[in-house]
Amino acid sequence: MVDLSEQSLHRSLQDPVLESIEAVKEIAARFPDVISFALGSPYLINLDDLDISHYINRYLVHLCRERNLAPHQARRLLYDYGPSRGLINDLVSDILLSDYGIEAEPESVVITVGAQEAMLLALRAICCSPDDLLGLINPTFYGIIGAARVLDVGIVPIRGNDNGLDIEHLKLSCEIARANGKRIRTVYVAPDFANPSGTVMDVPTRHKLLAIAEQQDMLLLEDNAYGFTAAPTAEMPTLKSLDKNGRVLYIGTFAKIFMPGARVGYVVADQIVRMRDGRRRPLASKLALIKCMTTVNTSPICQAIVGGMILEHGGSFASLSQSKSLIYRQNLTLLLEALDRYVPTIKGVTWNHPAGGFFVQMRIPVPADTALLELSASRYGVLWTPLFAFYVDRAGTNFLRLSCGHLDPFQIEVGVTKLARFLCEIASSEHLVPARFA
Amino acid sequence: MVDLSEQSLHRSLQDPVLESIEAVKEIAARFPDVISFALGSPYLINLDDLDISHYINRYLVHLCRERNLAPHQARRLLYDYGPSRGLINDLVSDILLSDYGIEAEPESVVITVGAQEAMLLALRAICCSPDDLLGLINPTFYGIIGAARVLDVGIVPIRGNDNGLDIEHLKLSCEIARANGKRIRTVYVAPDFANPSGTVMDVPTRHKLLAIAEQQDMLLLEDNAYGFTAAPTAEMPTLKSLDKNGRVLYIGTFAKIFMPGARVGYVVADQIVRMRDGRRRPLASKLALIKCMTTVNTSPICQAIVGGMILEHGGSFASLSQSKSLIYRQNLTLLLEALDRYVPTIKGVTWNHPAGGFFVQMRIPVPADTALLELSASRYGVLWTPLFAFYVDRAGTNFLRLSCGHLDPFQIEVGVTKLARFLCEIASSEHLVPARFA
Repeated sequence: MVDLSEQSLHRSLQDPVLESIEAVKEIAARFPDVISFALGSPYLINLDDLDISHYINRYLVHLCRERNLAPHQARRLLYDYGPSRGLINDLVSDILLSDYGIEAEPESVVITVGAQEAMLLALRAICCSPDDLLGLINPTFYGIIGAARVLDVGIVPIRGNDNGLDIEHLKLSCEIARANGKRIRTVYVAPDFANPSGTVMDVPTRHKLLAIAEQQDMLLLEDNAYGFTAAPTAEMPTLKSLDKNGRVLYIGTFAKIFMPGARVGYVVADQIVRMRDGRRRPLASKLALIKCMTTVNTSPICQAIVGGMILEHGGSFASLSQSKSLIYRQNLTLLLEALDRYVPTIKGVTWNHPAGGFFVQMRIPVPADTALLELSASRYGVLWTPLFAFYVDRAGTNFLRLSCGHLDPFQIEVGVTKLARFLCEIASSEHLVPARFA
Repeated sequence: MVDLSEQSLHRSLQDPVLESIEAVKEIAARFPDVISFALGSPYLINLDDLDISHYINRYLVHLCRERNLAPHQARRLLYDYGPSRGLINDLVSDILLSDYGIEAEPESVVITVGAQEAMLLALRAICCSPDDLLGLINPTFYGIIGAARVLDVGIVPIRGNDNGLDIEHLKLSCEIARANGKRIRTVYVAPDFANPSGTVMDVPTRHKLLAIAEQQDMLLLEDNAYGFTAAPTAEMPTLKSLDKNGRVLYIGTFAKIFMPGARVGYVVADQIVRMRDGRRRPLASKLALIKCMTTVNTSPICQAIVGGMILEHGGSFASLSQSKSLIYRQNLTLLLEALDRYVPTIKGVTWNHPAGGFFVQMRIPVPADTALLELSASRYGVLWTPLFAFYVDRAGTNFLRLSCGHLDPFQIEVGVTKLARFLCEIASSEHLVPARFA
């Protein structure tokens, strides 16, 4: 029987990012009944009465009317292969304009299997040689790190700060790359409540980032999974809506605002590509071609479910995002209040206070690794996410992430009391901590 | 506004494979009302009365019983993120045993977004350096060529023959690769009615291929999208069922036997991976990790639809595949009879007579390129697929593919009369052929 060593497989599989995902999943699977602050899942309890057929039928009516089809013809469009760029591009285009101030023709949109595939397609299209690097604010969402590893795209860590990112450090990094015969081709940013830091990029930094992208001939990947969780008074212009020169590829998902199980995301790529024969096409058409080689097309059935949900909200998410963001802000407030209430002052334990998103980032006095996570789950009944895999330079060994989007108030309260006990013990009782932490 | 040249993008986008897909799609979109032998779609007319909710509910009942869940808990599993390796692995494992003689534990299966993602994951995991090459029988399904291009995996064309592939040429190719400091790490094969050639690999060749894989330390990718179209009397053992040493990764899809719109495929990867810490895991667990970075997980809703359909057939496809394969064999027979009836003897026009699958491969006396396809669509009202992109070494310039799985008897008959007129004209009337063909 073939016996493969781990080292004989692609090097992305030896990367701490993928390894830590696997380890956290394994631990979570062994402790299914503990309270989990580890999942990045959204709040699903309000979907208990969801009628999938209702959404599909709603979209089918739209499809029949828009394309002048008989019902059986429209239904068959859901069962067959479909265009790689997607089926519901028109509806997504409408939302982008009404909710995010983004003008994007349906031809500039590709519907993807979640935001993850959007990242993969964008990275693959625009990083064309080993000299094309990806800049990542440290810490950053592991999905983009992993996509780069799978595609063998080199990564440059860019310093983050309270305004989003350190513009001077980005400039310096561009110069260093160029001095080494390389270039930072793209920078991935999540300007609105970044995962895991919760940081919001201020407006001056957004403008500066667009200016430096223009100067350095970079494209920016803007991921806006959590922007909708902002209080209505605090909404910021998306980077893409400020982008006059087509420097931004905008990535979105319906996972957090609707449901992850549909696996529907999208990317706006309205940059113009000059073809060798002189024709000009949106970059989205090239992303769709790469998609032929990853997943062919996003399930038209899933697109119909999302499409029906969009139509149900009149082509805009204003009402949906308001009610959803209220839940998420309440959860975040409950989590932060519970942390203040139950976690006493412990040397070396600090956490941030984001105004939106799903996450609180916490520093602890010992390495937050998978051995400690196992201890936390088995003895204290609480799960969290170790953050070392979110740090490109492995600087974040002592950080963990608490996620609260999917929990109810009772779970948050009880979870934090368990976490508090865990934190007190690791800080005070050496015998509870594996030897190497003592 | 950013103006990107095509050459500034990843080189896969300049590859003839992706270019020709785009060109064929564009032509097809401009002529929506012509008869299309170009689509690889399956027969969907029998799905007109399909009730998606019925299948989902059927699977939910199974899920509740198997995992001891309340109905709302089971439903939430469909709405949330899920395990990257999949949800319906147990059902797929049962089918593999009952229908294909393959013993695969659910842990050795990854549920993917169609067979295309399965190819991508498998290639990525096992080709770990630029020296690891992919052997492809010439001609071959463009999806595997494209996946290799996207991942920058080098390709070696292997000579095909009536038995499937030329074993001696494969041996020689392995030696040549080794002499150049490289190795053929894997060979992609579709032993049962390959796309586009329709070839069936005979049993001795299957055994020889397994033996050479063992000698040369290769892994084989077996794609079995069309095996179910065989007459019940003609069924062959899958390569995987003959594989005693774990040399085969087996790729399947529900697109052709059920529907493409669910986007559900799978890969069996039961090879053992030795981890650095001494644990042993199936290769499937590593493929699932890479999947975290491509699509996170296959839509659990789509998996539920497929799961319900599997349960509806008692965990085996015997009855479904029999009725489906009857339709496909009838279509193929009708196509071949119509070709014999309507296409007169024309110098340089020949075609094969496969016993299963969806495709007939035809040689014509002029290059079957996209310009000729446009002429065929606009003047003769018939579409087909140019095959040059299926030939790794571009040897197949004069070949086209006729696909008939999705058509009804009337469309096949009318389509072939149009095709016959087109073929007669390109052979006889120079003025109808663009100047460079004359």
